[in-house]
Amino acid sequence: MRPSGRAADELRSVSIERNFTMHAEGSVLISCGNTRVLCTASVEEKVPPWLRGKNEGWVTAEYGMLPRSTGSRMRREATAGKQGGRTLEIQRLIGRSLRAVVDRRALGERTITLDCDVLQADGGTRTAAITGAYVALVDACNGLVQKGRLKSSPVHGQVAAVSVGIFGDTPVLDLDYPEDSGAETDMNVVMNDGGGFIELQGTAEGHAFRRDELDALVDLAEKGIRELMVAQDEALA
Amino acid sequence: MRPSGRAADELRSVSIERNFTMHAEGSVLISCGNTRVLCTASVEEKVPPWLRGKNEGWVTAEYGMLPRSTGSRMRREATAGKQGGRTLEIQRLIGRSLRAVVDRRALGERTITLDCDVLQADGGTRTAAITGAYVALVDACNGLVQKGRLKSSPVHGQVAAVSVGIFGDTPVLDLDYPEDSGAETDMNVVMNDGGGFIELQGTAEGHAFRRDELDALVDLAEKGIRELMVAQDEALA
Amino acid sequence: MRPSGRAADELRSVSIERNFTMHAEGSVLISCGNTRVLCTASVEEKVPPWLRGKNEGWVTAEYGMLPRSTGSRMRREATAGKQGGRTLEIQRLIGRSLRAVVDRRALGERTITLDCDVLQADGGTRTAAITGAYVALVDACNGLVQKGRLKSSPVHGQVAAVSVGIFGDTPVLDLDYPEDSGAETDMNVVMNDGGGFIELQGTAEGHAFRRDELDALVDLAEKGIRELMVAQDEALA
Amino acid sequence: MRPSGRAADELRSVSIERNFTMHAEGSVLISCGNTRVLCTASVEEKVPPWLRGKNEGWVTAEYGMLPRSTGSRMRREATAGKQGGRTLEIQRLIGRSLRAVVDRRALGERTITLDCDVLQADGGTRTAAITGAYVALVDACNGLVQKGRLKSSPVHGQVAAVSVGIFGDTPVLDLDYPEDSGAETDMNVVMNDGGGFIELQGTAEGHAFRRDELDALVDLAEKGIRELMVAQDEALA
Amino acid sequence: MRPSGRAADELRSVSIERNFTMHAEGSVLISCGNTRVLCTASVEEKVPPWLRGKNEGWVTAEYGMLPRSTGSRMRREATAGKQGGRTLEIQRLIGRSLRAVVDRRALGERTITLDCDVLQADGGTRTAAITGAYVALVDACNGLVQKGRLKSSPVHGQVAAVSVGIFGDTPVLDLDYPEDSGAETDMNVVMNDGGGFIELQGTAEGHAFRRDELDALVDLAEKGIRELMVAQDEALA
Amino acid sequence: MRPSGRAADELRSVSIERNFTMHAEGSVLISCGNTRVLCTASVEEKVPPWLRGKNEGWVTAEYGMLPRSTGSRMRREATAGKQGGRTLEIQRLIGRSLRAVVDRRALGERTITLDCDVLQADGGTRTAAITGAYVALVDACNGLVQKGRLKSSPVHGQVAAVSVGIFGDTPVLDLDYPEDSGAETDMNVVMNDGGGFIELQGTAEGHAFRRDELDALVDLAEKGIRELMVAQDEALA
Repeated sequence: MRPSGRAADELRSVSIERNFTMHAEGSVLISCGNTRVLCTASVEEKVPPWLRGKNEGWVTAEYGMLPRSTGSRMRREATAGKQGGRTLEIQRLIGRSLRAVVDRRALGERTITLDCDVLQADGGTRTAAITGAYVALVDACNGLVQKGRLKSSPVHGQVAAVSVGIFGDTPVLDLDYPEDSGAETDMNVVMNDGGGFIELQGTAEGHAFRRDELDALVDLAEKGIRELMVAQDEALA
Repeated sequence: MRPSGRAADELRSVSIERNFTMHAEGSVLISCGNTRVLCTASVEEKVPPWLRGKNEGWVTAEYGMLPRSTGSRMRREATAGKQGGRTLEIQRLIGRSLRAVVDRRALGERTITLDCDVLQADGGTRTAAITGAYVALVDACNGLVQKGRLKSSPVHGQVAAVSVGIFGDTPVLDLDYPEDSGAETDMNVVMNDGGGFIELQGTAEGHAFRRDELDALVDLAEKGIRELMVAQDEALA
Repeated sequence: MRPSGRAADELRSVSIERNFTMHAEGSVLISCGNTRVLCTASVEEKVPPWLRGKNEGWVTAEYGMLPRSTGSRMRREATAGKQGGRTLEIQRLIGRSLRAVVDRRALGERTITLDCDVLQADGGTRTAAITGAYVALVDACNGLVQKGRLKSSPVHGQVAAVSVGIFGDTPVLDLDYPEDSGAETDMNVVMNDGGGFIELQGTAEGHAFRRDELDALVDLAEKGIRELMVAQDEALA
Repeated sequence: MRPSGRAADELRSVSIERNFTMHAEGSVLISCGNTRVLCTASVEEKVPPWLRGKNEGWVTAEYGMLPRSTGSRMRREATAGKQGGRTLEIQRLIGRSLRAVVDRRALGERTITLDCDVLQADGGTRTAAITGAYVALVDACNGLVQKGRLKSSPVHGQVAAVSVGIFGDTPVLDLDYPEDSGAETDMNVVMNDGGGFIELQGTAEGHAFRRDELDALVDLAEKGIRELMVAQDEALA
Repeated sequence: MRPSGRAADELRSVSIERNFTMHAEGSVLISCGNTRVLCTASVEEKVPPWLRGKNEGWVTAEYGMLPRSTGSRMRREATAGKQGGRTLEIQRLIGRSLRAVVDRRALGERTITLDCDVLQADGGTRTAAITGAYVALVDACNGLVQKGRLKSSPVHGQVAAVSVGIFGDTPVLDLDYPEDSGAETDMNVVMNDGGGFIELQGTAEGHAFRRDELDALVDLAEKGIRELMVAQDEALA
Repeated sequence: MRPSGRAADELRSVSIERNFTMHAEGSVLISCGNTRVLCTASVEEKVPPWLRGKNEGWVTAEYGMLPRSTGSRMRREATAGKQGGRTLEIQRLIGRSLRAVVDRRALGERTITLDCDVLQADGGTRTAAITGAYVALVDACNGLVQKGRLKSSPVHGQVAAVSVGIFGDTPVLDLDYPEDSGAETDMNVVMNDGGGFIELQGTAEGHAFRRDELDALVDLAEKGIRELMVAQDEALA
């Protein structure tokens, strides 16, 4: 029995609100249950030094949590003087996931930065960030086309992500915070719309997971990501 | 003529939304025109080392801007490794302003941290932060009373803030970004509900301002702050 | 009754010693009572990156306190790994104040850095720094003229600063440390020789100050700054 | 055809040298082909602040690369002022992997730190580090037993790790650097001696990987890890 | 022929001014020619964590240069975010030199910090700092005796320092900046009043120095330090 | 009587193993008794900014200790966020020592970085680093000649280093850790093959050392360095 009363293969309710703020080229507030992440896509007409003159663009991500997005206040990373290991790990994951669906040559010498800032956390912030950032990225690229700066969007695939885990011996989809903190195993899965895996990161918090459990978790993730892609499509329609 | 078409002594429309996020003891989204700041109040049952054992509490503030709250993307302070001078100056101002209306002995050995994070910037973020943080602070203190941890709220006054400035030779109230960047003089005023000044910070960007201009600016600020206090009262009603 | 026995509108004795050290283009030791600040002006034939190629110069300031300039030893900021919020706030104030009297186009593509280092602190270090830095700046600019690198000095006005405050219910001029730590309200005022205000920063430490108190403080500041300008003129004569 | 001429399911030659340095409680030089990592286990009679008084111990890891362990010199992280995101991600992985086989209550209030320093890199440094660190950990815990500080070793399982990937459309075991830089997909797998998965991290560098490819990779990893555990057993015999 | 016209074994004129600033327990401005260093001794009734409860005190030093103490402006270390290698090396040297003449048990659980800040640099700042800091240290310790906090001064010896070097093939005493930058070999020597060496640091900038040159340099240093000790005695008389 | 049973003028056994790792242009593991330092020389075809366009090269050094190279674990400097004062002092010493035997004009616009990483420490790590780095430097420069990038090696002299000290009133050669921690005086001496001194750094830890002790220590160092140069020659033969 899940704390939320959801079925084992049931996602939390998802909402994706575009144009949440006015300055960014793409600005999406994604809510997965009580988890709310603001994902903005910013286009800049330059690339990092190591890419200059190579006729390709860059897509990168940064991740942050507002200090009181969580149950007890976290220290602001700007006052700590650096981003923590968890933050760096997450923003590297988001960046790799989004780059997997962009043709960087077609993007040209520009950088798109996906800033994913958690306003309210209830588990699954990194996967919500990926799912929301995809929509912001599409908006930003379509904007480049509308302004005549690109002929067609360099986004060549769709990407979404979800967490799965083993909670009380049962594989479940889309863990919220109470499940996440009590789960035996936690896995984040990132897939594209061709059914291919972009990232798959499983961690046994308690007992190590068996091969059959791995299979069941991957099945759940595939189902959840298909549903999230429908939500992305509806938001973009 | 103001870019926004407002009268010289006209505030932007204000909205104050309480309980914007669920974890914080006080959580307020304040909008002053297009400027939107999320102000959370977090209560912690401890004080900074230099206050331990002194039977008084502490009220402090932190300020941040999301990287794409602005027209062009700003570098995230957490990646820069430190908060900039402007950020430190603003959060010191917010902290002093709020402490001015709290009886720290009555608060007891607790800390209330006001996190003011700008989701969208269009001028006047520091004064909006003060005005919104006051409401979050009241909510947090009332919560302490409701939970029986305090007999009465330690908030003994009301505080709000506004910017005024000289734009095109005319003193105007509540500058938005186009006015702020073109203003000759910019002044931030923080007042309490007794009509007293808590902070007054005027800077001549262009020509130095005269004594009569100072008087006119202060008059405008007094009017604006009275109106902002009405908006606070309505939100808290 | 002031701790020092001074009248309410009486400045501390001021001395301004030019050429205090030998390397800087301008080098001034200013003493306001027991507060002693070494202000050097350094000319460099370059501008910050964001000003390159714009045919204008830059004037900036840095501020520091020697670790034992104060009653108890302060931590050296170089060992703390960063400048504190107070330091950043002060050096931004000094920089803005001096820029207000320099024609940056006439300066050409050069930077003048005003380093204000407090050798001995007894209240009012930031205002002493501004008053002293003006003299160092004039010396540095006159040096550029004498060396034939500029036709005339780009300094087009005079600037000085003083603190005022309410001590024991009485508005007083030029607070020393015992007054500063006991003051209800503390205000730093920066003016030019045309009687215009460049900066005005008032903070209520205790009770909020009323409009009539504000007026009295500004009157005192105007009087004090006129006298400080006479001291600057005598030093430069 | 693999650059090294190895069969698709063939590990590089492994050597595990214990007592490589004299001070650490466990000190292992592991070589997996040309990848050489020095893994030391240090026992300290204290725990991190957040574990004090909880009657359990802590096991953690740190990872570093000597500046010239790689083909071109890397900047020393101590001069960069911080550990990079990749380093933090790797040392978090190593720490979690080793904690999965330690009974932290049985360890008592002590910390064991596994320092994994890469002397020479040729792909697979993080998995080599885990495999080597396990041996150092066993030595350190056995030493605690021999000195009478513990009745029995708190190590309750065996852990080893290997990388697998898709190189030129073929799933292969134990990637070296030329394979790693050209691989379509790269997966690091950490398992215990019960055949359970502790960590599984797969990343598509090029095309996304299919479910059947995932299965083939996991099969290869299981085979490789069984062989690495034999090497660990032989070293410890 | 020396640039200054001095004889090879001739010190620059020395002046030692006590009580240069008012807050520190010892405050000395030492001038060796144009090199001027402000040395303050601060007494604090605590010791570093690693000395607590050991019934001994600590003597340490910090060193800094004002940004424009030199011919061209140096970056302020507080803005650079750390002290440079040269600074750390110098302040470690000063600290060791002063500790060599203090009975730390007799000092009791206190720390004396010698802050040596260079107001004007013309070569030999580290040796001037040691020579001046000794006088500040004596004043601070005598003050402890006068206030009844110690029965007798814990300073059991006298220490002074000078630089020597080979300039144009000739061993010379007390290098100024023009000599220092052109010297083949530069040696800093710290001695006590018993004629013993506390520190001796020689560096060949150009050709390596021979054994006979070493002997000549040490002879010069012994002579110079004897004279500096006379100046210290006179200042303290 | 020395703890190791060595005669007062007896070096520890020295071994110098070239090509210890495969990527660096020079890679040497030097063992002086139980002290083991890995010294790599890395050639890069660029110079620091301040040397660009000056037709000369640069030789520099970095020094580090693995966290458990020592008896108790040291904090990793990369996690501390900066290199400590001792580290900076040592790597400056190593860099100066090696530069003393290189013709930087003949090297051309390249940088050679000597990374000296202590795998195991038992006293004398900095002098072992210098002695080993020389061999790595020779290998790297000879490699440049063999690849036709230089006509002849820019190394024009030989350099080695040793520590000496006064242990129990007796001057002794090549201190190991038990001697080093108990020594009255510790001196590091760097010499070239012409018998000239490149660096000489003596520190009195306990009583100050006399002139005759200085002479005895220098005699011992000269003897030890001659023997170390024989070991270097044999390794390079």
